[in-house]
Amino acid sequence: MNNYGTLFRISTFGESHGPAIGVVIDGCPAGLVIDEVFIQTELDRRKPGQSKITTQRNEDDTFKILSGVFEGKSTGTPIAIVIENQDQRSKDYSHIANTYRPSHADFTYDAKYGFRDYRGGGRSSARETAARVAAGAIAKLLLRTIGVEIQAFVSQVGDLKAPHYTQLDLSKTEDNIVRCPDATTAEKMIALIDQVRLDRDTIGGVVTGVIKNTPVGLGEPVFDKLHAELGKAMLSINAVKGFEYGSGFEGVTLRGSQHNDEFYNDGGKIKTKTNHSGGVQGGISNGEDIYFHVAFKPVATIMQDQPTVDKDGKETTVSGKGRHDPCVVPRAVPIVEAMAALVLADFYLRNKTVKV
Amino acid sequence: MNNYGTLFRISTFGESHGPAIGVVIDGCPAGLVIDEVFIQTELDRRKPGQSKITTQRNEDDTFKILSGVFEGKSTGTPIAIVIENQDQRSKDYSHIANTYRPSHADFTYDAKYGFRDYRGGGRSSARETAARVAAGAIAKLLLRTIGVEIQAFVSQVGDLKAPHYTQLDLSKTEDNIVRCPDATTAEKMIALIDQVRLDRDTIGGVVTGVIKNTPVGLGEPVFDKLHAELGKAMLSINAVKGFEYGSGFEGVTLRGSQHNDEFYNDGGKIKTKTNHSGGVQGGISNGEDIYFHVAFKPVATIMQDQPTVDKDGKETTVSGKGRHDPCVVPRAVPIVEAMAALVLADFYLRNKTVKV
Amino acid sequence: MNNYGTLFRISTFGESHGPAIGVVIDGCPAGLVIDEVFIQTELDRRKPGQSKITTQRNEDDTFKILSGVFEGKSTGTPIAIVIENQDQRSKDYSHIANTYRPSHADFTYDAKYGFRDYRGGGRSSARETAARVAAGAIAKLLLRTIGVEIQAFVSQVGDLKAPHYTQLDLSKTEDNIVRCPDATTAEKMIALIDQVRLDRDTIGGVVTGVIKNTPVGLGEPVFDKLHAELGKAMLSINAVKGFEYGSGFEGVTLRGSQHNDEFYNDGGKIKTKTNHSGGVQGGISNGEDIYFHVAFKPVATIMQDQPTVDKDGKETTVSGKGRHDPCVVPRAVPIVEAMAALVLADFYLRNKTVKV
Amino acid sequence: MNNYGTLFRISTFGESHGPAIGVVIDGCPAGLVIDEVFIQTELDRRKPGQSKITTQRNEDDTFKILSGVFEGKSTGTPIAIVIENQDQRSKDYSHIANTYRPSHADFTYDAKYGFRDYRGGGRSSARETAARVAAGAIAKLLLRTIGVEIQAFVSQVGDLKAPHYTQLDLSKTEDNIVRCPDATTAEKMIALIDQVRLDRDTIGGVVTGVIKNTPVGLGEPVFDKLHAELGKAMLSINAVKGFEYGSGFEGVTLRGSQHNDEFYNDGGKIKTKTNHSGGVQGGISNGEDIYFHVAFKPVATIMQDQPTVDKDGKETTVSGKGRHDPCVVPRAVPIVEAMAALVLADFYLRNKTVKV
Repeated sequence: MNNYGTLFRISTFGESHGPAIGVVIDGCPAGLVIDEVFIQTELDRRKPGQSKITTQRNEDDTFKILSGVFEGKSTGTPIAIVIENQDQRSKDYSHIANTYRPSHADFTYDAKYGFRDYRGGGRSSARETAARVAAGAIAKLLLRTIGVEIQAFVSQVGDLKAPHYTQLDLSKTEDNIVRCPDATTAEKMIALIDQVRLDRDTIGGVVTGVIKNTPVGLGEPVFDKLHAELGKAMLSINAVKGFEYGSGFEGVTLRGSQHNDEFYNDGGKIKTKTNHSGGVQGGISNGEDIYFHVAFKPVATIMQDQPTVDKDGKETTVSGKGRHDPCVVPRAVPIVEAMAALVLADFYLRNKTVKV
Repeated sequence: MNNYGTLFRISTFGESHGPAIGVVIDGCPAGLVIDEVFIQTELDRRKPGQSKITTQRNEDDTFKILSGVFEGKSTGTPIAIVIENQDQRSKDYSHIANTYRPSHADFTYDAKYGFRDYRGGGRSSARETAARVAAGAIAKLLLRTIGVEIQAFVSQVGDLKAPHYTQLDLSKTEDNIVRCPDATTAEKMIALIDQVRLDRDTIGGVVTGVIKNTPVGLGEPVFDKLHAELGKAMLSINAVKGFEYGSGFEGVTLRGSQHNDEFYNDGGKIKTKTNHSGGVQGGISNGEDIYFHVAFKPVATIMQDQPTVDKDGKETTVSGKGRHDPCVVPRAVPIVEAMAALVLADFYLRNKTVKV
Repeated sequence: MNNYGTLFRISTFGESHGPAIGVVIDGCPAGLVIDEVFIQTELDRRKPGQSKITTQRNEDDTFKILSGVFEGKSTGTPIAIVIENQDQRSKDYSHIANTYRPSHADFTYDAKYGFRDYRGGGRSSARETAARVAAGAIAKLLLRTIGVEIQAFVSQVGDLKAPHYTQLDLSKTEDNIVRCPDATTAEKMIALIDQVRLDRDTIGGVVTGVIKNTPVGLGEPVFDKLHAELGKAMLSINAVKGFEYGSGFEGVTLRGSQHNDEFYNDGGKIKTKTNHSGGVQGGISNGEDIYFHVAFKPVATIMQDQPTVDKDGKETTVSGKGRHDPCVVPRAVPIVEAMAALVLADFYLRNKTVKV
Repeated sequence: MNNYGTLFRISTFGESHGPAIGVVIDGCPAGLVIDEVFIQTELDRRKPGQSKITTQRNEDDTFKILSGVFEGKSTGTPIAIVIENQDQRSKDYSHIANTYRPSHADFTYDAKYGFRDYRGGGRSSARETAARVAAGAIAKLLLRTIGVEIQAFVSQVGDLKAPHYTQLDLSKTEDNIVRCPDATTAEKMIALIDQVRLDRDTIGGVVTGVIKNTPVGLGEPVFDKLHAELGKAMLSINAVKGFEYGSGFEGVTLRGSQHNDEFYNDGGKIKTKTNHSGGVQGGISNGEDIYFHVAFKPVATIMQDQPTVDKDGKETTVSGKGRHDPCVVPRAVPIVEAMAALVLADFYLRNKTVKV
């Protein structure tokens, strides 16, 4: 299933080294001003080659809208967006045509489909996420009309952790190449990633997402709880190993009397004093900040020889070639935001029919 | 959306204190022997009042199959299962008709729908999960035909943690009331929960799920990755705050050279030496054990006065009445298994059409 | 797939001679007054034994709401409705356990599922439509809030045709047992059906549906056109062989200059002079009456010996036993209305998200 | 909803005069040989300008595959196909920017979405069906692997009717430009269409579809009956007003004793002597020919002045400009086949999971 969403729906397509990747967005309400400069800005935040700590693969990631927009506004019909693949260098991948890279999708795709487009990982490549970012940009434009703001940042690289989001100025996220709004931590993170790169290795990290100004009432019980869809959306991003929201895994050690968020009346508005709930109660937004953490494993492609097998089961070794990220989290920030925007935009539309 | 699944689909219905709860299972293949004793056994593992550390609410949870089974076998048509609510005591809840219990769904349901069935939390009650367990039992019966085994256990209560699942004998999970297969840890967990109960408080915990013998190839890129659906399924269970699989959040501190799972040839079968991947690569099962952790917050209902507001925003206090669990994880074990079974059964069917 | 609808969604279940049939309605907006007397009235219009020209099978068709309604109003959670099967007489069907009745679903169900619940046709029985009528009644209640009126009537039995709907007073439909608002034609139809019954035979007919006061704008291009969903909904009713709307099959003989519906300004409202479009243009309602015809074949069960084969392919004969309708259209009228209501209710909700 | 299908799923996009139209096919099994020459042949059967009785608008309809095919075979990932719009002449449509053409979608699109891409009808243009034909070609390739053959032909233009399909040699359909396999009728049809064109008018017609060698068991009760999905698929094609299968509307005049299809044993295979059922019983294919009729209204665009209103309700006149079909059915033949193929391919895949 290469589609996501119930009312604000996207279908992505494309392989890493095919002619193009893209997305069809169906269900975007008519009359939305489509700011193409903004879409490009978002794509540029994700694109490779943007700094010394990301892959040097060079893709312009220039997009083209094929349908669904007329005189600058969405028409209510499907918006198709295509991004051509330019810097393909397929020959970089001939060495893995028959070999299974450790912790990649090579083996499982072959087993599932009988064969695979091995060039750059084909469909399993994170290149697919460019399509998500383009669609997410349009979701963000829709959410802006109701004031919802989505911000993500790098909160951990290896063992290096930034302070809790409430102690940070999130407007500083783009001030450094690692996308951590805490300058001191950011500097250390960059140094660590650089060292890892020199070691021809990779390292994991955590991206934190924060959603402000969500209207009360978004989320659909019982299976499509707001946080359950957010979790699925995040876990569907390449290399993600975990998702928690609000108090998360740490919350299990608390007692109910510590964990419960007391309601109070804040000048006519019902608010909570603490926010262990992470802005979601019973699967439905309560108007507080929604915040969550997304764990990314170290990138599987390393510039070292690793033992493995080929498709006949014969033992061999493989080493990364080409250009890869030593740490995926800086470029994952706009992807996390995009997926969050797609989730929220969908729930926003779904919530329009819940009352007579 | 009260339904889950693409081909093996369930729709649950029912409120905590209405006439009945239930589930309709659509897409179960015809010819499956429906073992009603097994279904009841599963429901009994979840039912209230089963031990001193669970709520003393008394429900038989006897189910009735209304359709879809003929001469002991599934017919391929929808299987409807109904469980009547018996021990309702609606009067226990009159005190919260207009008051919002902290960290419950009272406020958000009212905001979303305009009003709510406040008796026992109505639809937001964990009573709904009985329907999931009944459906999950049928999913387990289907998965048994291909040898898939699903086991969950309590791996953490408060700060008390059991060893890694690979060091445990999971057949001992049902040997104690807390459902932790490590007897020593189990004893401590029971003591802790008992103390928490005496303190009129609650505490959180972690349930670990392990799925063995999954065929290679289950899971659907790119959005419906196996672990993404597992994550959504778990996060849709009441009180869940986090999900991780394989190396999870701890994996972010590792380097790629440590984290990658080397392939080797195990007598003709391709296996991995380590399993940081948690049995899933590129969103598709690779045949290794699938394992994951699910974080449950402390139950929100505590037997203490807590400040809150009523539906007009007036400040007041509320205290738990009735009968509630001091810790939800022992009873959550069969629910986690049920949701895992629903995910796997669905992917098993979906995988039947991927190759010509 | 035993479910229908995108936002106003129903899942039906149950076999003709199992314990019960029923439906779960998900997506009904909260706050709708659920008029149980009206639901029963609708079920009574469909129930067997209501007149001398319908089957004498005796079912009360008393329904019970299990969930989703609190203090007389929908809560926004799933509404489960169950109707117990009472007058089952399963022994009437033992003669067809192994024999394929001509033009029934016996052979195809066996071939598809490997076996079947043969009692009364099991799931393939038109008894399933009672669940649709119950759900359709709730859809009608929702549509009433915006003024939409749905009326169906018998427009043809065998060769006997009623005048065009615009020449009829549809409020007279329930004045006779054949449900044709034209008294003269009705009388002839009743006589014909009675004769057919005496001949131990059956006969087909046409039900016409008329929907008034539909808001402009319902229907979703390009696949879910309003008339395409109406068509599917009608064709999903047992014994239906054809669907046409507006000018239908007769329209193919016209020229464009005759068929086009001119627009004019009717006191500030845009209207059309003729209505060959049947109220739908480009798949979207234009505010004119929506009207359509549904062709029903003669009931397959006849009280005569017919050559056939058994499940081993051995030739044999079979004759109808039990109690069956000589003509299905009088009882089909509320079913056609119910399905139309389900289609319209769904499009009404879907239309709430098409504009920013 | 611009997508169709449950397992073999398509999403189409694009407007008549935008940069391109296209389709994403998701769920096509891996390993299917993608015959690009065949896809082009199918598109050429639909393309404008192919004969004197079709529109002279000139489109090459050359397609490009962007993804999902590797080394000539489907990979199991989404197949994106794009067809650029070449001969756009947008100026032809400036006269209708503010005027509602009778029996077009101009008024309803404006009412639904608030504005519209008026160039050539935008999304409501039958140009969208080129995307369906491309996707349908791939569905046909899949169906060929199990021997299913789908053929459509023009069976009626105005009052001119061809004999019943069982009396025709369907291999002759492409022998003439009207696509009627009966040469005598074809000649008359062509003369009629030519006359209509000279009259600056249009005329309707009927396309008959025939599907041979369908395996027994396709179709999903109770809502997604095989003929119900076929009906929806056909009714979703521009200008379609009616659908009937098997005996259709004529069958209503028959008695059950005439209409029932007797089973017999044909050398070990269960067959029916007649086929009023049209190959479908209880919504499931029985192995006999599936056949159906699709009614197309006369094209709404005529080369004559017609009274209408503009978007402010002001009365005005409008006349067709540009290049249009005097009769749509010859070019509709491949579209009907494509939609039938999409329906059958989907049911073929869905049927793979119905038995344990």
